[in-house]
Amino acid sequence: MSVGLPAPGKLLPVPGVKLASAAANIHSTARDDLVLLVFEASADVSAVFTKSSFRAAPVEIAESRIRAGGVRALLINSGNANAATGNAGHEAALGLCDTAAQILEIDTMGVAPFSTGVIGEQLPFERMNAALSDMRESLVADGWQAAAAAIMTTDTAAKVLSHQVQVGESTVTITGMAKGAGMIKPDMATLLAFICCDAAIERVCLDQLVREVADASFNRITIDGDTSTNDSFVLAATGTNNLPPISQTQSAEYGLVKAALLHVAQHLAQCIVRDGEGATKFVTVDVTGARETAEALEVAYTIAESPLVKTALFAGDPNWGRLCMAIGRAGVEDLDVARVNVFLGEVCVVRGGLKDTDYEESAGARVMAQDEFEIRVELGRGSADAVIWTSDLSYEYVRINAEYRT
Amino acid sequence: MSVGLPAPGKLLPVPGVKLASAAANIHSTARDDLVLLVFEASADVSAVFTKSSFRAAPVEIAESRIRAGGVRALLINSGNANAATGNAGHEAALGLCDTAAQILEIDTMGVAPFSTGVIGEQLPFERMNAALSDMRESLVADGWQAAAAAIMTTDTAAKVLSHQVQVGESTVTITGMAKGAGMIKPDMATLLAFICCDAAIERVCLDQLVREVADASFNRITIDGDTSTNDSFVLAATGTNNLPPISQTQSAEYGLVKAALLHVAQHLAQCIVRDGEGATKFVTVDVTGARETAEALEVAYTIAESPLVKTALFAGDPNWGRLCMAIGRAGVEDLDVARVNVFLGEVCVVRGGLKDTDYEESAGARVMAQDEFEIRVELGRGSADAVIWTSDLSYEYVRINAEYRT
Repeated sequence: MSVGLPAPGKLLPVPGVKLASAAANIHSTARDDLVLLVFEASADVSAVFTKSSFRAAPVEIAESRIRAGGVRALLINSGNANAATGNAGHEAALGLCDTAAQILEIDTMGVAPFSTGVIGEQLPFERMNAALSDMRESLVADGWQAAAAAIMTTDTAAKVLSHQVQVGESTVTITGMAKGAGMIKPDMATLLAFICCDAAIERVCLDQLVREVADASFNRITIDGDTSTNDSFVLAATGTNNLPPISQTQSAEYGLVKAALLHVAQHLAQCIVRDGEGATKFVTVDVTGARETAEALEVAYTIAESPLVKTALFAGDPNWGRLCMAIGRAGVEDLDVARVNVFLGEVCVVRGGLKDTDYEESAGARVMAQDEFEIRVELGRGSADAVIWTSDLSYEYVRINAEYRT
Repeated sequence: MSVGLPAPGKLLPVPGVKLASAAANIHSTARDDLVLLVFEASADVSAVFTKSSFRAAPVEIAESRIRAGGVRALLINSGNANAATGNAGHEAALGLCDTAAQILEIDTMGVAPFSTGVIGEQLPFERMNAALSDMRESLVADGWQAAAAAIMTTDTAAKVLSHQVQVGESTVTITGMAKGAGMIKPDMATLLAFICCDAAIERVCLDQLVREVADASFNRITIDGDTSTNDSFVLAATGTNNLPPISQTQSAEYGLVKAALLHVAQHLAQCIVRDGEGATKFVTVDVTGARETAEALEVAYTIAESPLVKTALFAGDPNWGRLCMAIGRAGVEDLDVARVNVFLGEVCVVRGGLKDTDYEESAGARVMAQDEFEIRVELGRGSADAVIWTSDLSYEYVRINAEYRT
């Protein structure tokens, strides 16, 4: 199941980036599951990673190498998360990076590893190493679609988008891909997202960009509230464009590129929700009138992750009492419910903490019968707000996760 | 569905307590849905209530009256929560208390109201008032079973237990009832639990007892992580027993009575989990080696409320990677996963943060094939621990909550 997943549209190669995909038989079915993504030497890369205590081995390695600088290639596999695998898992990831560095003739510290799939099993090192050794020949600039498909796990469709933005005399080209359909409440970034552009962006700006873009996209979605051990979001700027390097976060160029990157990142993040495990609804939760953004987010996530709200979404039942329940348990200090309003789409359901006098259930039911709609909560106590995106809780979510071994 | 729900056993009247049940047609089906519980004048009552911001009208009224002292009767209905109902809901609850006070010939401040059921609808005041006016005649000492059935909503069975404890020369008799099957993560107390005993307990001791008993029973269960607007746990001591009043929380008598009350409260709390909406498993989550109790509870609740863990419980799948995922996202600062051990029943699954070398999946699968088992996590960083009880996430949970209007 999925809700309104858009077709990827025309994909644009990003100058300075080549990709190869291969089948290493990590999955039990015949499919590509290994991706090599290689940058020109002019590129720089920044990333944010999961805050889980049980971070996967590749997360530890990728974070330290990306922080140190000089990363020239990303090695990505699906089908095995290489998490909770101890020293053996760490050594396997390092060994595969060594092989990638050898075939690419770059420094071994220049390869950053990423994994997604089953937790707690060792990587099939030999099969992966064998597949990897032939991948240099298949590196191509237009390998995005194949790569986006190769990193899928329970995803029903590849998530990938291109976008261009005019900056001064130059055009910046952006292409990104992401995967994820369950264990989705990214805590810094979602389970594997990679966005590349051909601008030159100085490292301090790139580090801020990756955080700002993640916070307004991948950090604003939840499917089941479960944070992965492997969440990683990588932003690469190849610097092959003729635009002068972006060096000021206050500059017009930074703003233009950030807006364009955010367009791609929000699209990919929303695709993840649309393709959420068992999703039949795509719901925007918009909380306004909070004292602080953190307060607005707390209310929004409590609504979005409540099993009772999510089953009502699945049923298309305008059960606004459950929205009040969720707002009530969100831990907002001294909340005056007599100032709280709740809307389903444009329909006011709750005004001043109780059922709006003009509300008729048929109006709420019409909104919730749609595949996509918004829940808006006005807290009436400040000017901070937050928007997040989520899906519902269906029989299919239970089936997928009762049958699939994460 | 339910898991190992015990038969109520022999129920004992509590001297000083009488109960009546009636059908006020609050539910759409023909059944009792209104309960009046009346105490002797010697009784004292204490209670804890939900921390929800969207507290129901009866919660506000009951809390202030019980705090003030002098409560002689409890008026309880199922089928309508009287939450998010504004002034009209408040007035309706007050009016019903007035009627109860009139028929019982007691002060109107001596009646405390309790409601459970649909949120956001006004009480059917006239029907309830009419049913109430005849209830004095049906007050009986052995009305517990009927009352426990009348307060049910999606519960599949009444939850009620009696217990006696010898204190000095005297026997203290305890009987309690509770209801709740969804919207269960009590935050102070669960959706309607009432325990009465015939000891005399001074108010300061009674206030401490109700908190201590709640914290080790109703505040240790979660079905879906959703906290109700109406959670209330009431503890009454009728003082009809010939035991001298308990006036010291450090006394042996306090300890004996507390242990007996806790026996009843834990039984009722566990019954609520066993009867959890769609429950097919009854699971104890035991976290040890934490720095503080709050840390142990955070890990335990993160495991117990993770949709991915809950669907694995439903499937009987020993998917310990999801347990690591949940531990990892529980927000334990500086957790050293190399010190973390995880057990399914007596089977060590994770030792030192990765799969135990002796672990075989068939052993984990055997534990999880049982209806009831324990998940134990050793954090290895302190001496605090916590035990909670939970159920799984099944198709039936989704069906019940997609069809039922809370």
